[in-house]
Amino acid sequence: MDARQYAWLPDPFPMWRGGMLHGARIAYETWGALNAARDNALLLFTGLSPPAHAASSPADPSDGWWQGMVGPGLAIDSERFFVICVNSLGSCFGSTGPASVDPATGQPYRLTFPDLSVEDIARAGFETVRSLGIERLDTVMGPSLGGMVVLAYAAQFPGAARRLVCISGTAAAAPFAIALRSIQREAITHDPDWQGGNYTSERAPVTGQRLARKLGTVTYRSAAEWAQRFGRQPIRQEMKRGDPFASEFAIQGYLEALAQRFVSAFDANCYLYISRSMDRFDLSAHGEPVSVFRRAGLSAALVIGVQSDLLFSVTEQQAIASMLTAAGVATRFTQLPCIEGHDAFLVDLDTFGREIGAFLRGG
Amino acid sequence: MDARQYAWLPDPFPMWRGGMLHGARIAYETWGALNAARDNALLLFTGLSPPAHAASSPADPSDGWWQGMVGPGLAIDSERFFVICVNSLGSCFGSTGPASVDPATGQPYRLTFPDLSVEDIARAGFETVRSLGIERLDTVMGPSLGGMVVLAYAAQFPGAARRLVCISGTAAAAPFAIALRSIQREAITHDPDWQGGNYTSERAPVTGQRLARKLGTVTYRSAAEWAQRFGRQPIRQEMKRGDPFASEFAIQGYLEALAQRFVSAFDANCYLYISRSMDRFDLSAHGEPVSVFRRAGLSAALVIGVQSDLLFSVTEQQAIASMLTAAGVATRFTQLPCIEGHDAFLVDLDTFGREIGAFLRGG
Repeated sequence: MDARQYAWLPDPFPMWRGGMLHGARIAYETWGALNAARDNALLLFTGLSPPAHAASSPADPSDGWWQGMVGPGLAIDSERFFVICVNSLGSCFGSTGPASVDPATGQPYRLTFPDLSVEDIARAGFETVRSLGIERLDTVMGPSLGGMVVLAYAAQFPGAARRLVCISGTAAAAPFAIALRSIQREAITHDPDWQGGNYTSERAPVTGQRLARKLGTVTYRSAAEWAQRFGRQPIRQEMKRGDPFASEFAIQGYLEALAQRFVSAFDANCYLYISRSMDRFDLSAHGEPVSVFRRAGLSAALVIGVQSDLLFSVTEQQAIASMLTAAGVATRFTQLPCIEGHDAFLVDLDTFGREIGAFLRGG
Repeated sequence: MDARQYAWLPDPFPMWRGGMLHGARIAYETWGALNAARDNALLLFTGLSPPAHAASSPADPSDGWWQGMVGPGLAIDSERFFVICVNSLGSCFGSTGPASVDPATGQPYRLTFPDLSVEDIARAGFETVRSLGIERLDTVMGPSLGGMVVLAYAAQFPGAARRLVCISGTAAAAPFAIALRSIQREAITHDPDWQGGNYTSERAPVTGQRLARKLGTVTYRSAAEWAQRFGRQPIRQEMKRGDPFASEFAIQGYLEALAQRFVSAFDANCYLYISRSMDRFDLSAHGEPVSVFRRAGLSAALVIGVQSDLLFSVTEQQAIASMLTAAGVATRFTQLPCIEGHDAFLVDLDTFGREIGAFLRGG
């Protein structure tokens, strides 16, 4: 079952760093109903890799990536809001990206896909909303990459959202995060099976992708969480392999299982494009950030950071909140003590749900 | 110029997890002079990759890995102490390791080298000290891997050292560190040029080694340091390459430069063996740690941790200090606010020198 719908982007669709797309589309899902005033829409952007399927719905009852957060009576309440979640431009779950066929050639774009920016992901979401006849969002929201996208949304489309929720995001990628992401990309581009981006589905750069995902998983969590959860438990017998230097500890088996799942689902070139767009994002490319936020026409904002986040440090969220406040936006900044690191928004639904629900109910 | 001397290990040299070495040796360097009572020796173990050359000396005036810390009038004062620094067993800077020739075959050991444990590195240091006619060390000291080795030293050789200094070490590798190191090893073992360990010097697994070292460098530092030091500076023009997804930021150029230097110096199999020995280390294999420390015959200990250390969290050093204290050892525990992460002992020589110097002068 598939709850995805598709919005066709304007043709041509201009890309922020040059180039354009033809016949591009965005996959999205919705929960709840648009009211008569068309003013109860909430647009949700995702992190690097999720699809538009944020939560179950009649059309697709399978669990979504934010199951328990989006739905009737939940923090993002589909009885109140018309919730739209988009698969990012550049991704591979129905939206146009490097793995899509270029209508000009009949072949996949691969590395001929134009440079992707966080700004393009924001614009594709904006056009999706417009295609639904919505002039102004009640709220634009996103975690992680999505937390960058909402800032690019506010910067590019003044007045297009009344409220903004930025979760574990940043106004400009930090060198530590750039270092970690660039190692992940290098693991893929140095896999001989990557073949300059021209791999086949039968022989994708899975070794590089597995390494990249394992490193990603490490950076999404925290040492304290894993000490509690895994300690020095040995790997389960059935996951043991005979290789030299094979895995010996439970944590290694956990990384491997997550990596296998990712590799079978996500296209390598799409990963490279989106990962690089995160490194390059810098809100100040749109002007001095306080002025950018002043022009954005926001009435309220919620900024959430997590103390144990290695990848998007809480000081980065604090900086976003300070700039919003300086721009006259009524801003709530919350620094959460969760131990799950960057991924806490996916894990500690109680804490995040309380913060997000209270803000959204706030009027 | 070369200041290395060599100690031949007892033949056979039994390895902690089984197997034995024949004709093995340890490369070491010394600073200062052994006094008539032979009771002023300080044995220094290294982190994962340094050689025995901790500091310059008349025989080798080049800078060492702890230049500014070891020498006349410095924190580790060679006018007072006879300082011995050993290249770890299993390494490749003069000590026997997987890259050495197996006398039984005339070929390099490679993966036929027996399993290496932190305990073996400690024993090899102990035998080096014995070969110099020293019964009891004034102090056994080590940072990082060396901070594990000193604990294995105390556990295996009761009475062999009067004092212990453990810097940014751990009594048992944490799952977060295991995860990061196992990704580094996997980058090497999945490089096709590794060839099951049978690479040639003309074609070593340099791609995997470069990735491993880059990831290592990230984990040895901190986000806060790099935000200050690199920010979002672009990469220097001369380091730009034309590859797809090539480096764009200064931090990426820095990682690449350090990785290149490492790859040309360090053997891949040696790296794999030593890295795995760190994952496997668990002091409790020697018995309940407080009892282990009670038997060790130490009169004083200094334990140093760094708040920004991602790889060996400060709570791990705190645990070591608590166990030493519970064992009746006069222990000073210092938690330093340095922002340089795990590598702070190599960078913030003022702060570390003050702590170490005060302890060593303490009598």
